Amino acid sequence: MADDDRRTEFVLPYSSACPAAVDQSNCIQLAHGEGGRLMRQLLKERIAPTLQAAINEDAARISAMKGDWAVTTDSFVVSPLFFPGGNIGSLAVYGTVNDLSVAGADPIAITLSLIIEEGLSFQLLDEVLSSVARTANECGVRVVAGDTKVVPRGAVDKLFITTTGVGQYRPASHLQCQQIQSGDLLLISGPIGQHGMAVLAAREKLHMTPEPISDCGNLRIVCATLHNQLGEDLRAMRDATRGGVSAVLQEWSEASGTTMQLYENQLPVTAETRGMCELLGLDPLYVANEGTFVAAVAPSVFEKALEVMREFSISSRACAIGKVIDKISSPVVIERMLGTLHPIDDPAGAPLPRIC
Amino acid sequence: MADDDRRTEFVLPYSSACPAAVDQSNCIQLAHGEGGRLMRQLLKERIAPTLQAAINEDAARISAMKGDWAVTTDSFVVSPLFFPGGNIGSLAVYGTVNDLSVAGADPIAITLSLIIEEGLSFQLLDEVLSSVARTANECGVRVVAGDTKVVPRGAVDKLFITTTGVGQYRPASHLQCQQIQSGDLLLISGPIGQHGMAVLAAREKLHMTPEPISDCGNLRIVCATLHNQLGEDLRAMRDATRGGVSAVLQEWSEASGTTMQLYENQLPVTAETRGMCELLGLDPLYVANEGTFVAAVAPSVFEKALEVMREFSISSRACAIGKVIDKISSPVVIERMLGTLHPIDDPAGAPLPRIC
Repeated sequence: MADDDRRTEFVLPYSSACPAAVDQSNCIQLAHGEGGRLMRQLLKERIAPTLQAAINEDAARISAMKGDWAVTTDSFVVSPLFFPGGNIGSLAVYGTVNDLSVAGADPIAITLSLIIEEGLSFQLLDEVLSSVARTANECGVRVVAGDTKVVPRGAVDKLFITTTGVGQYRPASHLQCQQIQSGDLLLISGPIGQHGMAVLAAREKLHMTPEPISDCGNLRIVCATLHNQLGEDLRAMRDATRGGVSAVLQEWSEASGTTMQLYENQLPVTAETRGMCELLGLDPLYVANEGTFVAAVAPSVFEKALEVMREFSISSRACAIGKVIDKISSPVVIERMLGTLHPIDDPAGAPLPRIC
Repeated sequence: MADDDRRTEFVLPYSSACPAAVDQSNCIQLAHGEGGRLMRQLLKERIAPTLQAAINEDAARISAMKGDWAVTTDSFVVSPLFFPGGNIGSLAVYGTVNDLSVAGADPIAITLSLIIEEGLSFQLLDEVLSSVARTANECGVRVVAGDTKVVPRGAVDKLFITTTGVGQYRPASHLQCQQIQSGDLLLISGPIGQHGMAVLAAREKLHMTPEPISDCGNLRIVCATLHNQLGEDLRAMRDATRGGVSAVLQEWSEASGTTMQLYENQLPVTAETRGMCELLGLDPLYVANEGTFVAAVAPSVFEKALEVMREFSISSRACAIGKVIDKISSPVVIERMLGTLHPIDDPAGAPLPRIC
């Protein structure tokens, strides 16, 4: 069958990667996966139009016979696989459950797809799978489907996980960042930037004392309670993952046509995170969280919202961090200690790759 | 914050990979992702017990208010990304739609998660996304959620895609391989082994003439029609992907406690596939398909089933390939040209990695 006279090479449509020397504007860069401007641009200019898909909330709504179902998906490529406070398995489940929870849905089931590098030890795989099971149990979701691919050494870095979550929107679910309006208040469920710092310290073996610990955790119950108690006065919730609190507020500003104003002296940051950020020149506003969410609420329910959040250990340190104001030149601004307003930059990417 | 006196390294729980020299029995091997015995073993002994999940059919059933929803997930790591007859984008959508279709569900929506290597060209990404959109449109599913991760050069080989499909089981859906019984007949929807050979020829630049072309295609309509027309006389359907027809029949034998008997002279194989397989010493029974399925039907509806399948171009070359018999020593046997029965081996893996 092989035709030796026909020497034309089988030509793949395109060379797959840009050589390092060529124009970066024509290539995927690390920043395209980092939750910042370039990623939103990629979604808006390429992925959404090509797929004719709307990209707004963390979960997709599917009209069903009775009640609407929510679907969300995420790939996890965190390095290292284990870090203080979690691992790629617990991270994947919490991430997916939280995406459904902040969107106003009750998580029901998740799927789990593994891409494994040849040579990964069973011990490590077992540890990750156990963690998936424990976390799914804690969050009240079943793992209902899965897939396993193994690729040759070097084709993937150890282990990547993709989880998809399916849930049901709560009756009369209305949470949408388009509803945010001037006068609303902004709350945070706890100290920011812990996850990114924990992963970075583990990856770079920074030996910090005390060591930063990821905030990886289950937002299901606090989000559902907040939603049930506040009704329409709860405008929107979002877990502040890749790109940190800054990325959430940039998106909310764009969606609602308002400006988000933060108070610098109210932003909760642990001593560990503050120390590491100062050392490395990072701003915790841009650093990823995995069990911390931002909520926008009507001013009338502000105290009740904080009260509800503080009932749960995951959000016991909830506090107000800012307010929504009429649109000014910057989408997000911060009021410094002395009262001046500074714009919060919208970075092209985030400072840390592979934190989730 | 950094404590220089504390020199204890941050110790990750486990080294992530077995060195090449150590005992292979303690490591993930390529064969664990190849649809054969080792993969079933991995699923049965580790993944299913750890997750307390049942692993039987291609899609998961979720009880809903009204009607049952089906969920399925798959990661695609095919190399090369483009091959005659398809690419990683069309492959991902067909694969997911087909998994729902053979399980007796009508596909509704899919999610799309991309893991991209830094440096991938936009041109290539656009081509893949367009292919996803075209294929989703052809199959009548919407892409409802997605995720994009970019990892540094070398952490992944160009582009991996994970798709999750959500569908609705048809009323009174009963398709289950446990229902297969002695006397049932086995049908195939078309020539086998084309996808694996097409990918291999493209990867290794084998310059075959004529070149093998993947059977990548949409099984939605033919599966739904078959199901509606045959009712309970259609016992089970399965797309013969990783591990080929052999893997499907091994699983069906185990699930139903019967033996699957094939007729060698009835197996449909194209000239291209036969030639390549002979050249490479491969058996097309083990080679992957991506738009070809096996059906088990009651003998009374055998002719009607073939008639229905032949109405659709994707299955116009459908034919009978064997029958289900009482359990004998081998789960799958083949009747050679001269009438003798030979057992079909259940290989540890499949001959070709990264074909889907």
